[in-house]
Amino acid sequence: MSQENIEQPPGRADGREPGQLREIKFKNNVAPNALGSTLIEWGNTRVICAVTVEESVPRWMKEQNVPGGWITAEYSMLPYSTQQRKPRDITKGKLEGRTQEIQRLIGRALRSAVNLEKLGERTLWVDCDVLQADGGTRTASITGACVALMLAIKKLIAEGKLTEDPLLNPVAAVSVGIVGGKVLLDLSYTEDVAAEVDMNLVMNSVGEFIEIQGTGEESTFTDEQLAEMLRFGKEGIKQIIAIQQKAKDE
Amino acid sequence: MSQENIEQPPGRADGREPGQLREIKFKNNVAPNALGSTLIEWGNTRVICAVTVEESVPRWMKEQNVPGGWITAEYSMLPYSTQQRKPRDITKGKLEGRTQEIQRLIGRALRSAVNLEKLGERTLWVDCDVLQADGGTRTASITGACVALMLAIKKLIAEGKLTEDPLLNPVAAVSVGIVGGKVLLDLSYTEDVAAEVDMNLVMNSVGEFIEIQGTGEESTFTDEQLAEMLRFGKEGIKQIIAIQQKAKDE
Amino acid sequence: MSQENIEQPPGRADGREPGQLREIKFKNNVAPNALGSTLIEWGNTRVICAVTVEESVPRWMKEQNVPGGWITAEYSMLPYSTQQRKPRDITKGKLEGRTQEIQRLIGRALRSAVNLEKLGERTLWVDCDVLQADGGTRTASITGACVALMLAIKKLIAEGKLTEDPLLNPVAAVSVGIVGGKVLLDLSYTEDVAAEVDMNLVMNSVGEFIEIQGTGEESTFTDEQLAEMLRFGKEGIKQIIAIQQKAKDE
Amino acid sequence: MSQENIEQPPGRADGREPGQLREIKFKNNVAPNALGSTLIEWGNTRVICAVTVEESVPRWMKEQNVPGGWITAEYSMLPYSTQQRKPRDITKGKLEGRTQEIQRLIGRALRSAVNLEKLGERTLWVDCDVLQADGGTRTASITGACVALMLAIKKLIAEGKLTEDPLLNPVAAVSVGIVGGKVLLDLSYTEDVAAEVDMNLVMNSVGEFIEIQGTGEESTFTDEQLAEMLRFGKEGIKQIIAIQQKAKDE
Amino acid sequence: MSQENIEQPPGRADGREPGQLREIKFKNNVAPNALGSTLIEWGNTRVICAVTVEESVPRWMKEQNVPGGWITAEYSMLPYSTQQRKPRDITKGKLEGRTQEIQRLIGRALRSAVNLEKLGERTLWVDCDVLQADGGTRTASITGACVALMLAIKKLIAEGKLTEDPLLNPVAAVSVGIVGGKVLLDLSYTEDVAAEVDMNLVMNSVGEFIEIQGTGEESTFTDEQLAEMLRFGKEGIKQIIAIQQKAKDE
Amino acid sequence: MSQENIEQPPGRADGREPGQLREIKFKNNVAPNALGSTLIEWGNTRVICAVTVEESVPRWMKEQNVPGGWITAEYSMLPYSTQQRKPRDITKGKLEGRTQEIQRLIGRALRSAVNLEKLGERTLWVDCDVLQADGGTRTASITGACVALMLAIKKLIAEGKLTEDPLLNPVAAVSVGIVGGKVLLDLSYTEDVAAEVDMNLVMNSVGEFIEIQGTGEESTFTDEQLAEMLRFGKEGIKQIIAIQQKAKDE
Repeated sequence: MSQENIEQPPGRADGREPGQLREIKFKNNVAPNALGSTLIEWGNTRVICAVTVEESVPRWMKEQNVPGGWITAEYSMLPYSTQQRKPRDITKGKLEGRTQEIQRLIGRALRSAVNLEKLGERTLWVDCDVLQADGGTRTASITGACVALMLAIKKLIAEGKLTEDPLLNPVAAVSVGIVGGKVLLDLSYTEDVAAEVDMNLVMNSVGEFIEIQGTGEESTFTDEQLAEMLRFGKEGIKQIIAIQQKAKDE
Repeated sequence: MSQENIEQPPGRADGREPGQLREIKFKNNVAPNALGSTLIEWGNTRVICAVTVEESVPRWMKEQNVPGGWITAEYSMLPYSTQQRKPRDITKGKLEGRTQEIQRLIGRALRSAVNLEKLGERTLWVDCDVLQADGGTRTASITGACVALMLAIKKLIAEGKLTEDPLLNPVAAVSVGIVGGKVLLDLSYTEDVAAEVDMNLVMNSVGEFIEIQGTGEESTFTDEQLAEMLRFGKEGIKQIIAIQQKAKDE
Repeated sequence: MSQENIEQPPGRADGREPGQLREIKFKNNVAPNALGSTLIEWGNTRVICAVTVEESVPRWMKEQNVPGGWITAEYSMLPYSTQQRKPRDITKGKLEGRTQEIQRLIGRALRSAVNLEKLGERTLWVDCDVLQADGGTRTASITGACVALMLAIKKLIAEGKLTEDPLLNPVAAVSVGIVGGKVLLDLSYTEDVAAEVDMNLVMNSVGEFIEIQGTGEESTFTDEQLAEMLRFGKEGIKQIIAIQQKAKDE
Repeated sequence: MSQENIEQPPGRADGREPGQLREIKFKNNVAPNALGSTLIEWGNTRVICAVTVEESVPRWMKEQNVPGGWITAEYSMLPYSTQQRKPRDITKGKLEGRTQEIQRLIGRALRSAVNLEKLGERTLWVDCDVLQADGGTRTASITGACVALMLAIKKLIAEGKLTEDPLLNPVAAVSVGIVGGKVLLDLSYTEDVAAEVDMNLVMNSVGEFIEIQGTGEESTFTDEQLAEMLRFGKEGIKQIIAIQQKAKDE
Repeated sequence: MSQENIEQPPGRADGREPGQLREIKFKNNVAPNALGSTLIEWGNTRVICAVTVEESVPRWMKEQNVPGGWITAEYSMLPYSTQQRKPRDITKGKLEGRTQEIQRLIGRALRSAVNLEKLGERTLWVDCDVLQADGGTRTASITGACVALMLAIKKLIAEGKLTEDPLLNPVAAVSVGIVGGKVLLDLSYTEDVAAEVDMNLVMNSVGEFIEIQGTGEESTFTDEQLAEMLRFGKEGIKQIIAIQQKAKDE
Repeated sequence: MSQENIEQPPGRADGREPGQLREIKFKNNVAPNALGSTLIEWGNTRVICAVTVEESVPRWMKEQNVPGGWITAEYSMLPYSTQQRKPRDITKGKLEGRTQEIQRLIGRALRSAVNLEKLGERTLWVDCDVLQADGGTRTASITGACVALMLAIKKLIAEGKLTEDPLLNPVAAVSVGIVGGKVLLDLSYTEDVAAEVDMNLVMNSVGEFIEIQGTGEESTFTDEQLAEMLRFGKEGIKQIIAIQQKAKDE
């Protein structure tokens, strides 16, 4: 693939191959009051992921007699995470549509990783606060949140609050897009802004899909491009899952 | 295929084949003060789609000197559209996350159908109000809104406000899902509730993708299932585009 | 009265006599998920009126042990109902004073048409959504809502949920005003804007008043003008009640 | 009066004749920072009325090039004005419909008393804060606000900011209702709660109507009752206007 | 001290000595529906202080089984209390930070004056509405509210709702500041605006501190200045407590 | 003082002397997109402090032609900073009074450390996000924010945006309180909850006061106790200032 780079001089700004991930690191337990927490550093993107527990379930579960527990997510960009200060949500008085979409996505992703019945009658709150944003904050949030979730579950088991492990298959997420007509894995902020097509994949450790969200904003994509994006994405997820596994045991 | 039905007794409640659409009809000009409007009836789902014009563009376009126009969408379920009355957004004081996701999706879909530069310095507002909800309100909204948009553009041309047609390729949308392990096209409300996987496709009249959103809420899907869903969806979109074409000329 | 028109050449823009109503039509059952619904077309004004049921009563009724049921109304102008797009209430985050006045008025009017004790311990929600606005949306809403209410009650009786008919006397409403010093019945939007005095009357089928609201915005009116407005209004109401009676049986 | 009481045993709780007003007093200049202010005491109802000036007009007037000034009103019940503490508007985060109706009514009434063009390009804010509520707070507000307005105009003239008096005819308001089938003038709180029909009249010093608002909540009224209510109301207004005249010169 | 004035000609605008209070007067029972009320006039500052009772306690007290009652305060500036009309809180939709600080301060001050256990399971609401603002509205509010509280407690005892007096030591408040390098007691609005340092003291009748809040906005103060401010403040509080005592018995 | 501890066995839970600070550490540059940032660890309390710049000033400064720049602060507790998850501000839709008080306090403190005129026409935003809360989050915020501010100013100078150093004297803050009748420096969460009196001091590097806030919630304090609290606080501030100086140069 380096040959291809020679032929198409303007490669990626950070010198990555089209199908190459940025470096991903985890620093666990940054928020000791949480049940589980980690700081995921994914290239220049940094997200604090923390899981806290509430010993009750949402009202609709009680009303409908749904057994087991629930997982819900909140996502926020700290005001100093972007190059231009981003006003807090409370300043505008409401959540942006983008924020709501992301926190719904994170919640769905994590719920698919857990047997909710085995979780018992409790809610796990998954908070993702972006400390530095350089593209891929939603995929970093999902990937980091899954580590925090695994740490939280380990602790609930250690404390005797869970007798059976509710974890099914860990999940991870990655972005893939088309920039200048070319498929690229794991877009940085600059690449994301320039992308014709942007796709986020959420998959689990056994190679199943949880979520595909592909968008051609003011653009379109073909069957062939879709296939190539899926191929890049699946390969990326495999690598991320491997890093995640190591992180949770550190 | 009737044979297949005999072998797999619990077929679809309304007797449709797995890959069969519900009936789709349009009643244009239901809101004469709008620039273009249509009532789309898609099975039992009914959505009023109307396009109005504002002779200015959003502030960010002015500030960033983006040439041309803009298209923005709003989506709402009328309180009597559901079997249990649904309180108005204003009663709760804020838009649900689901509503925001849908209106962002409709906006992106329609912007991909139009050359925004040729639209001139104006905003088209696309409103979709659900009169009756029986599954697929977001795909009906996109499909109906595109008809209203074509009517609105026709009128702008007739009024001499546009000298060149900004329409690129019309867009349509359809849902496809996995219910009881089986891929089904165009889910009704009951099917949607029971679905393990739910996917919405937005495509244009030349077979390109605008948007893919596939979600396995508390479930997952494989490569093969993804491929089958895409196949069903693409076939459905073709038929819908044909109906749309006739509708806009009535 | 035609003689008078000859003497005062500039008559009404649509050629109506001072005491003449616009044409009023009903299209029932436009929102099949509602208990009762109708689309009232009153000249160029169109309002969707729908009644839904909630099997409980407001908290204050429970706390004060008030027997029977309740009727409450909501009114909204769809954004494409006006010539200039009207932003949705949720965009501004609050209901306009005008909207609140109108929905309180509709609620009072309909409650006067029903024996609330006989309604049983349930709430009827009356929604009025203006599809096209050309003056008189509040009077069209009351008049249309009363038809939707009669359809809803008929259905509750048919379903065996009501054993006794709670309907007292149907109600209807009409506007009357002074434009250019002259009393006119049933003002169109253009007439309403030009009116010195604007009065809305709500009356029932036996000729009793439910509500009189007469306002001289930056103007005043005399005893004689009041008397003439009341005479025009009462005559109009009689005709409207007759149309309503036919509508409810179609 | 005792004779009549014997014949019609349960008379008014405070011994008044059916057509008799409560005592009305004014204490001017209670809020010295205002341009004009008065405390109106009307029976046990007390309202602080104050007029302040803003040297600009609402945006819509500028945009539509409407010449002259504007008058706008705000109404609020202080939390300790009622027997049960009434939470502040800000606690609930929004104005009640009733409050909005009243402040719109006060604004319309006062604008009818003034030649807005002669007011110059400024806005007069009329604030009415209820210190004690015993029925008739909206009519006391209008009546008191008109005194505060006259004091404010006098001051603007004295300060040389107005060279011509913009006052047309002062306005006053009174309630009249049907209680136990009997028409009564100027309802106290207890009478208001028991009333079948409640009507508020706003009239000016030359006997013209500004506003009639008659409501039969869960009740109706006849032509004859309407006529009697109007007769009582007009008589009451005359007396109130006389008291107002004296008040403004104290 | 007059000698000092001779030496430093530009004394206080109203001729007061540095350590001299403005005149303080009370007019009790201005809001008869309240349990206790007073209008405090402190120089040109006027605040309506009223206490109402709610026969229940905040939820957190019930949940945590805290015995006794509670006192909570609300503070508001009437729109015509300032020289430039001040928009109502509800117009902006939220309380200013300054308002929240003041009402929290008033609440803490009054709770320290009462044995909350002896108050019984009820909440006293203390409302302070500023009718005219000329500096020191928060100290006038605390001082006036304490009188209203004493009147309210007297009434609760008279009504037999309290058998034991819950009052500990009455509290009063005063401001002291540094203006032009000189310590002054009881700042007027003009002095407050010019002050380098602003301090509010809340103390009780036996000379104990409840609250000290000293702020050098864009300035600082030394140990010696702090000591002198405390000396002036303590002397002022003693005089205010004496006036308060008389007021509550009138 | 150790002698005293021998006599009063139940000393501080963490073994500290009454006048002893917890350990304070700084980790600079945790949020690289900010102009200056630090993570302050103060005992178990951790706060992210970050300064960002906006090249304009608040509207009131423009309107009043105030020269120079501005500093404004925002404070927030991350939901996982407390032992029980704390809902985000946006969930409740408004800032708590406590939060507003703290951010106003931080802003005032930092503005006193800077010559605002020399800052140029720009706003520095100071954000303090609590990652872990164990008492003293407001004093840690001020102390950490001052380090972030010094880093930010250093960077503005390095970038040539400032030619003259606007820093006056750095500021730091500490709490001191009375617990069980005994004056203690730097209260932990458990001590804070048990305190009869809580005082926060903000002082600068030359020993001047910026702010004193002492509160006896349902309690009082004497002159002697005030003097002892001030003595402890001033000693603590000196030590903190020294640590701060080292931190800013790392």
